[in-house]
Amino acid sequence: MLASLVAALDLLGVAVFAATGALTASRKQLDIVGFALLAAVTGIGGGTLRDLLIGRLPVFWVGQPLYLAVTTAVAVLVFFVAHRIESRYRLLLWLDALGLALFAGLGARIALLHEVPAVVAVLLGTMTATFGGILRDLLCAELPLILRREIYVTAAVLAAAVYVTLDRLAVASDLVLLAAVAAGFALRALALAKGLSLPVYRPRPGRDYPP
Amino acid sequence: MLASLVAALDLLGVAVFAATGALTASRKQLDIVGFALLAAVTGIGGGTLRDLLIGRLPVFWVGQPLYLAVTTAVAVLVFFVAHRIESRYRLLLWLDALGLALFAGLGARIALLHEVPAVVAVLLGTMTATFGGILRDLLCAELPLILRREIYVTAAVLAAAVYVTLDRLAVASDLVLLAAVAAGFALRALALAKGLSLPVYRPRPGRDYPP
Amino acid sequence: MLASLVAALDLLGVAVFAATGALTASRKQLDIVGFALLAAVTGIGGGTLRDLLIGRLPVFWVGQPLYLAVTTAVAVLVFFVAHRIESRYRLLLWLDALGLALFAGLGARIALLHEVPAVVAVLLGTMTATFGGILRDLLCAELPLILRREIYVTAAVLAAAVYVTLDRLAVASDLVLLAAVAAGFALRALALAKGLSLPVYRPRPGRDYPP
Repeated sequence: MLASLVAALDLLGVAVFAATGALTASRKQLDIVGFALLAAVTGIGGGTLRDLLIGRLPVFWVGQPLYLAVTTAVAVLVFFVAHRIESRYRLLLWLDALGLALFAGLGARIALLHEVPAVVAVLLGTMTATFGGILRDLLCAELPLILRREIYVTAAVLAAAVYVTLDRLAVASDLVLLAAVAAGFALRALALAKGLSLPVYRPRPGRDYPP
Repeated sequence: MLASLVAALDLLGVAVFAATGALTASRKQLDIVGFALLAAVTGIGGGTLRDLLIGRLPVFWVGQPLYLAVTTAVAVLVFFVAHRIESRYRLLLWLDALGLALFAGLGARIALLHEVPAVVAVLLGTMTATFGGILRDLLCAELPLILRREIYVTAAVLAAAVYVTLDRLAVASDLVLLAAVAAGFALRALALAKGLSLPVYRPRPGRDYPP
Repeated sequence: MLASLVAALDLLGVAVFAATGALTASRKQLDIVGFALLAAVTGIGGGTLRDLLIGRLPVFWVGQPLYLAVTTAVAVLVFFVAHRIESRYRLLLWLDALGLALFAGLGARIALLHEVPAVVAVLLGTMTATFGGILRDLLCAELPLILRREIYVTAAVLAAAVYVTLDRLAVASDLVLLAAVAAGFALRALALAKGLSLPVYRPRPGRDYPP
């Protein structure tokens, strides 16, 4: 049962990130090929970086055309229905939040299956969750989401850290994944709904003469 | 004969993309080392991404210094003669078009030699063709070419798709490559000469009450 | 003795580049997770690219949590003490200069240990030295350092070329590394202190009728 749950969440993550890529393409008024390319890059970018770094080659989507079929289908769908959606940017942010939480948990899971140290698994989960969105924003010359004030990367770190911690405590693995995704999504949702943020660095005047 | 045709087209693609990198360096008034770095990154960037994704490591230029010799020679040449060229930006666009078509066909070819599914080969060909230019534009903080109105990525998709389709139909392989490159270049040339573009996504007011 | 010298210089390079990432995070007023992510990406980015290109997988930091521990500790330290520093940008530039020289030499060394051709080792050293900073600037939407007027990439090329040349001349290896780092740092320091630059490309009017 776990295997199919993981596979379903994985495809869901690819689909929602692909949708954010296509919605960004709609903001930039690209043609349908631009939609398809941005959907593919955003949907599979994070997992691709993870696979490269741990040496899991060829990367996951090269042998399984289903992933590209999903991102392309999502791109075509968004191209034809996006104009019916009232607030595309709001939808983009919420889908991105879901993808962020899913990929942070799934990325940490795959990293642990490759027996990397805990701190490395947390970073790999975070990178899996954020790299697709980073590529999307770079390719479209948008302000990178990681520079935004509200909690973003932190939600991915939380999801990955929850997964790694519960896994080390030998909790049954399918609950672990759901708990990790729920924690990451809840934090990002709070940030989106309430404008929640961590204290940021603020420059203060240097103290020339300590007391 | 095919092997030498492929090798010649491959070096031609590297050289013309290297020239676009060096021409971009001239627009940014860099020094000769900046010319050489941008020529190298643009010339070998696309094939490098392709090799990473399919796990063909070390990547192609690591064992063959000829590639870097070509990009460096092109950079030095452009540094000293670019001021004689009347319209450097126009030349950059046309060389980029040629490199785009060459690398889309060659990238799809190498992907198929690694026995990836057809849709994956089309994406890998497209990435091989576009990634060098994407890196060039990112490094120079130029507006990414893929955001431009005229057909660009689509020409790479066409070249890669023509290669994959004819290959599946078991057409003799050297004609396939030439046909793919010709198709991609012709489409991009039309786009450049006539301002050809696909219909883009246009936001329309939502229809609250369908008829 | 060489092994521990190399290991120490390697960690020093990671730490100083991590500090430049954290200082950039302070300029962007990010939260502490943003500091940690930028410190990690800047500190390990260059070596990661080098390892990917030569197929040394998984990349170096995946099996050794010490690297991420160092970048995270540096990030936390900078978050709490950066406001005491009078000129953070000046400090950033000098730490970046040190990291640049260290990673150019170390990158060339690892490339040669993998028996790549000399010109390839110079490029790999240069990429190791510059890619972390490129990622830092891209993620923060800063003007890329490689577009700056003063000598930058050239200092990395010099350090890598000195390493490769002395290694080919069979000079004892620990002196080679120190000489390469010293040469690269000295050139970049001159550039920073004196505003030294190479002659840049300057567009001149075309000559319609050669004499």
